Amino acid sequence: MLQQLARNAGSQTPVGTFDVLVQDDESLGRTGMLHTAHGVVPTPVFCPVGTQATVKTLSPDELVALDAPMILANTYHLYLRPGADTIGALGGLHDFMGWERPLLTDSGGFQVFSLKGLRRVDDNGVTFRSHIDGSEHRLTPEKVVAIQEVLGSDIAMVLDECAEPFHHEYNVAALRRTHLWAERCLRAHRRRDQLLFGIIQGGVFEDLRAESARVLAGMGFPGYAVGGLSVGEPKSDMHRILDHVVPLMPANKPRYLMGAGSPEDMLEGVARGIDIFDCVLPTRLARNGAMLTPEGRLNLRNATYRVDSRPIQEGCTCYACRHFSRAYLRHLVMANEILGLRLNTIHNVHFMLDLMRRIREALTLGCFAAFKEEFLGRYRVADAAARDRNRQRWRTS
Amino acid sequence: MLQQLARNAGSQTPVGTFDVLVQDDESLGRTGMLHTAHGVVPTPVFCPVGTQATVKTLSPDELVALDAPMILANTYHLYLRPGADTIGALGGLHDFMGWERPLLTDSGGFQVFSLKGLRRVDDNGVTFRSHIDGSEHRLTPEKVVAIQEVLGSDIAMVLDECAEPFHHEYNVAALRRTHLWAERCLRAHRRRDQLLFGIIQGGVFEDLRAESARVLAGMGFPGYAVGGLSVGEPKSDMHRILDHVVPLMPANKPRYLMGAGSPEDMLEGVARGIDIFDCVLPTRLARNGAMLTPEGRLNLRNATYRVDSRPIQEGCTCYACRHFSRAYLRHLVMANEILGLRLNTIHNVHFMLDLMRRIREALTLGCFAAFKEEFLGRYRVADAAARDRNRQRWRTS
Repeated sequence: MLQQLARNAGSQTPVGTFDVLVQDDESLGRTGMLHTAHGVVPTPVFCPVGTQATVKTLSPDELVALDAPMILANTYHLYLRPGADTIGALGGLHDFMGWERPLLTDSGGFQVFSLKGLRRVDDNGVTFRSHIDGSEHRLTPEKVVAIQEVLGSDIAMVLDECAEPFHHEYNVAALRRTHLWAERCLRAHRRRDQLLFGIIQGGVFEDLRAESARVLAGMGFPGYAVGGLSVGEPKSDMHRILDHVVPLMPANKPRYLMGAGSPEDMLEGVARGIDIFDCVLPTRLARNGAMLTPEGRLNLRNATYRVDSRPIQEGCTCYACRHFSRAYLRHLVMANEILGLRLNTIHNVHFMLDLMRRIREALTLGCFAAFKEEFLGRYRVADAAARDRNRQRWRTS
Repeated sequence: MLQQLARNAGSQTPVGTFDVLVQDDESLGRTGMLHTAHGVVPTPVFCPVGTQATVKTLSPDELVALDAPMILANTYHLYLRPGADTIGALGGLHDFMGWERPLLTDSGGFQVFSLKGLRRVDDNGVTFRSHIDGSEHRLTPEKVVAIQEVLGSDIAMVLDECAEPFHHEYNVAALRRTHLWAERCLRAHRRRDQLLFGIIQGGVFEDLRAESARVLAGMGFPGYAVGGLSVGEPKSDMHRILDHVVPLMPANKPRYLMGAGSPEDMLEGVARGIDIFDCVLPTRLARNGAMLTPEGRLNLRNATYRVDSRPIQEGCTCYACRHFSRAYLRHLVMANEILGLRLNTIHNVHFMLDLMRRIREALTLGCFAAFKEEFLGRYRVADAAARDRNRQRWRTS
């Protein structure tokens, strides 16, 4: 039923309306419906990432077949190439990339602050050099809003300064600018069919996070993100900050944990009241041959799968599992065949979207705590070393 | 109607039956139906190439949606990786790659003879080193047949020696071995559900080609290929040899021109009596952003398409043209996005298959000569320099 409602793009409900449907008794978990100009998004939701106006390897019709409710695109990348004006001239990002469902764009702030040594920040914005051709560019709060208005995403994000999570002094300074910029973004924002979300920063510091939540809530955004987490800090810090900050966020607005998207992150995040997730992890893992299964990751490069006629995951209904063996997918990976990248991506995206469907169902049925315990009891989490390797390339592609 | 019949895999007609349906009055062009164990192939037919058990970037369901009647896979590549035994253990090549329609495999001879300096030939076979890991391997006529029987392709090819087209002495020596090996392949071949085709060699020499056609016809193959053309010789030589050799080939058996597959090659080949074509050109061009259109090639890297909202080809019914602009496809090419390789491949394969459908229709309606003249009058053939660049990588990927 949630799926059917999600397709009801012709709804008369005002854009930005967020209906909380079920509030879990034993956790902060909840189900909801976020109304956007391109349809209703059932929450909690996982958004596959389409950095350069394409979820790598997948076509829009495959994403619809996988029933992805919303995808994310990166403002920084699209601003540099092909350019916001180009996309605007072609009718906006939805038309450009052939995606008719809701779209979320980040502000580019995270990418710019990842360009260490290539950017200078001041109170009015940030100057940086392109990773493509070294050309100099400047983003201001107003420009970031203007770009996203041209792109025409359903959810846009304010420009924020994403500081090193453990650097207190830097976080204090960055937070001041983040709040300044949030206010300027809000003032500059014109499109009524686009929701502009605020971003709470403050690193791993509970007092800064509390201040950020309070200040931003006072500005009255239609949704709030928690930024600056899942950037290398231990999971325990992420959980501690979520435990502390989510109760301070407006309960009647969607809450978005930026850049988190491992299966365990979804369960822990939902339990702590998060409604929206995005991450490149599932698609990037897929391109490396690391497949998500209920037992943990299965690495197709392992020789043990050479003549394994089973699908990646027994009982999985995705196109890859219905048609191909581990042996064939392993062959495609070993032979560097593009079809392998694509079939593996289909499986991992299906795994994440299916997990979210089951989480929503468990919340609806009132058995989320049991579902979470059962899933995490079976799922072998990747070790810290593997996580660190992944994190180095976090959200960059 | 041809399409519907092509799907009639449950036919009771014996495998290998080749029905000539229409013989053109003004050329050697003809339509036919080749009955294989996995269904009927309407001819003339273009076979997309799936070197490593995948037509690069495309899934089997996309190839079926494109209505590809038959595809080719490369014995040499699959023998080296993942190995014929692995594919055999997984039920054969059809099951392995999820392709239920007819499959053609080459013998590996062409690839081995392309490994200059890495192979030694003698009357019993050829010894070579793997392009993957340098390991030493030996192919004999019997082994090449055994491998293809394990793969289970519908059409298998004999081991042949593909000589430099203009080197007369080499062609004389190679032809002796090619005929020796053809006989040994035929004797070794056991599978009644697989058609083993002979390969006519002889370079650009009419006397050698005539001898080869005569010797092979005497062996009674269910089909005959013309090998050793489209390997770098001028188009005029290819046409001259086809003009000379096709009339010497059995009229009631399918004729296969190996490795030719530009639009102009198809029209010239069909006019000269060829029934089957294969080539990596359309798929490789697509991955380079060179799109086939009725006017010639359109290169998506050209800045002129930066904000071009038109499809690659107006009126084209392929998925790429129905959903995406030149500007978006250009963006994907410039950003090295995999989806671009895939959408471009869909278009170029559609273009070739659609051209073949129209050629069959023109033959059926008795207007092939007019169709050919009209098509070639509009289609700007790539210049010789571009052809030479392409040829250097001919049939290697």
